[in-house]
Amino acid sequence: MSNSPINLLPSDLAYVPFVSVDNMMRNVRAIGVETFMRGIAEYIEQDFLRWESFDKKPRIPAHAPQGVIELMPTSDGKTFGFKYVNGHPGNTRDGLQTVTGFGVLSNLTTGYPVLFTEMTILTALRTAANSALAAKYLAPRGSTTMAIIGNGAQSDFQCLAFKDMLGITDIRAYDIDSAASLRLARNLANSGLNVTICKTPEDAIEGAQIITTVTADKKSATILTDNMVGTGVHINAVGGDCPGKTELHRDILLRSDIFVEFPDQTHIEGEFQQLDRDHPVTELWQVYAGKAEGRNSQDQITLFDSVGFAIEDFAALRYVRDLLPRTGHFEKLDLLADPDDPRDLYGMVLRSAANGDNQAA
Amino acid sequence: MSNSPINLLPSDLAYVPFVSVDNMMRNVRAIGVETFMRGIAEYIEQDFLRWESFDKKPRIPAHAPQGVIELMPTSDGKTFGFKYVNGHPGNTRDGLQTVTGFGVLSNLTTGYPVLFTEMTILTALRTAANSALAAKYLAPRGSTTMAIIGNGAQSDFQCLAFKDMLGITDIRAYDIDSAASLRLARNLANSGLNVTICKTPEDAIEGAQIITTVTADKKSATILTDNMVGTGVHINAVGGDCPGKTELHRDILLRSDIFVEFPDQTHIEGEFQQLDRDHPVTELWQVYAGKAEGRNSQDQITLFDSVGFAIEDFAALRYVRDLLPRTGHFEKLDLLADPDDPRDLYGMVLRSAANGDNQAA
Repeated sequence: MSNSPINLLPSDLAYVPFVSVDNMMRNVRAIGVETFMRGIAEYIEQDFLRWESFDKKPRIPAHAPQGVIELMPTSDGKTFGFKYVNGHPGNTRDGLQTVTGFGVLSNLTTGYPVLFTEMTILTALRTAANSALAAKYLAPRGSTTMAIIGNGAQSDFQCLAFKDMLGITDIRAYDIDSAASLRLARNLANSGLNVTICKTPEDAIEGAQIITTVTADKKSATILTDNMVGTGVHINAVGGDCPGKTELHRDILLRSDIFVEFPDQTHIEGEFQQLDRDHPVTELWQVYAGKAEGRNSQDQITLFDSVGFAIEDFAALRYVRDLLPRTGHFEKLDLLADPDDPRDLYGMVLRSAANGDNQAA
Repeated sequence: MSNSPINLLPSDLAYVPFVSVDNMMRNVRAIGVETFMRGIAEYIEQDFLRWESFDKKPRIPAHAPQGVIELMPTSDGKTFGFKYVNGHPGNTRDGLQTVTGFGVLSNLTTGYPVLFTEMTILTALRTAANSALAAKYLAPRGSTTMAIIGNGAQSDFQCLAFKDMLGITDIRAYDIDSAASLRLARNLANSGLNVTICKTPEDAIEGAQIITTVTADKKSATILTDNMVGTGVHINAVGGDCPGKTELHRDILLRSDIFVEFPDQTHIEGEFQQLDRDHPVTELWQVYAGKAEGRNSQDQITLFDSVGFAIEDFAALRYVRDLLPRTGHFEKLDLLADPDDPRDLYGMVLRSAANGDNQAA
């Protein structure tokens, strides 16, 4: 490139595709939220099927009294991805999100990023897609009714993913704040789902084949007690996702077959915190690969102890990257310095003066 | 916020200040490259003086045969920062940079990013600033001549930082590729530095009080042999910065007092690789804090075994954040979802349809 004339505009090499919040919403609307989640689920399943090719690390946290920021990197040896995500339960008091995130996908053979994207919306989509994917292997066949306990930001996505991927027709919603349930019902009004707002958790799980718990309290709570849970159900436990935060009574765990993403992480963050490290659990990737059984009887209680894992974000990032050429809903970000001569970084700064300083900032 | 009318445009909470490559160059030009590096050096010194308040981790790597991508996070309990950086020595063959990077600074009490910036240029600036800062404590008083061995992308910045912060007037440049030395001399033509291009490393270090080695080869090389280095000099060893890559003969290390950033990392990546783990080294922060001696005699050989550490990037990010209100050279990036009701993420997607789909993508 050093033989070509000096080019004062960034080359294509300098640009990284960027998906803003606005463009993520456009992408979701362009193909539909259910299709989007089904697509992510397919990518997650593909990546779980090649589980052993991934570099798996626990997430890397930075703690403050108010919350945590985590980096979640992973790589398959050719592609690298990471998510930045925070969790600050007090944020909503100040009009801020409890959880926000963004992520990057890179070509590991060159080190260059190929996608930079918001991941607040994308994490909500991938979490629901991941739950529905697990339920395809674990929930009773022909499930039509799902109880959803905790009707916050994640609940809409869970209901829509289970409708699309499991055939759920009826939602029984409970939240300690009935305004949250009303909000959920309003958003799902034209979705084709029948939503019943329930006054108690007991009422909500009445007749449900699938029980989704997705509460936000950052402490141990007993959303479900042992006597509430009958045989044969599938429990999709999404809310217990950090140290000290659980949703289910320990006795339920002892009656369930427990399925997890990555045992090392689930034991720190999931319902699994309540059990000894050597309590038997099944890794989901083994179920998808046919190496372990999913549901094996009508009476079995299956429990997906979901905490969220880096490979799910990696799959979601791959899905978005592959979607963008189809929708065109992205911008190009001038993120990478690209001097004509790679050794001449300072020369690029020097030469840019002639061009740049005449322009408006 | 749920009582206010529905706002279809992102609020200020949704935006993160973003410094593109173009805007980084504008910022550098706005205040001058030397002032910029002196400013970063002041911030690095401030942060090294509160060394013990930082959460210090070795960098987190993802490897491929072609190179590595690293995440370098750190936090002081109130602010969190990380850098993404790659190192791919074969990239220049394809017109790509060997090293590119970007970084994020966040408010750890809310988890929200407060700065997203390119860090290819910024890393070059902070590396030179960091070298010059160390040399202020370690180089012989009244140094006027610096040898610089390796005349690639980092060399210009090193020369300018040492001119500004140490009073260097004469540069003696050597590179195995003489075109690289010519490039360096051309870029420094109007800097006020006298640049002499030398035919051998021996020639370059003739009369130099400071010897900077900043070669790019990713293997062990002996840029300096023992008999080349006289007493009383300061060696600023910048190029040996990853496992298996060193620049100095081991015997030089044995005659030197060695100063390092973070021993755990330097022992993996620096010249220190060639010595036993228990060989004595001095941590720079202790020199800055007056807890350890820097240069203590005219005959002493001091060696700064530089590998680059996360706290230096953290300081550089802080400097840029504080500079932006003054220069205005940044954009606002729509990175964070900010629904009117923090619980209503899906509702935000639903409502955006009315507004967004009429606009061009």
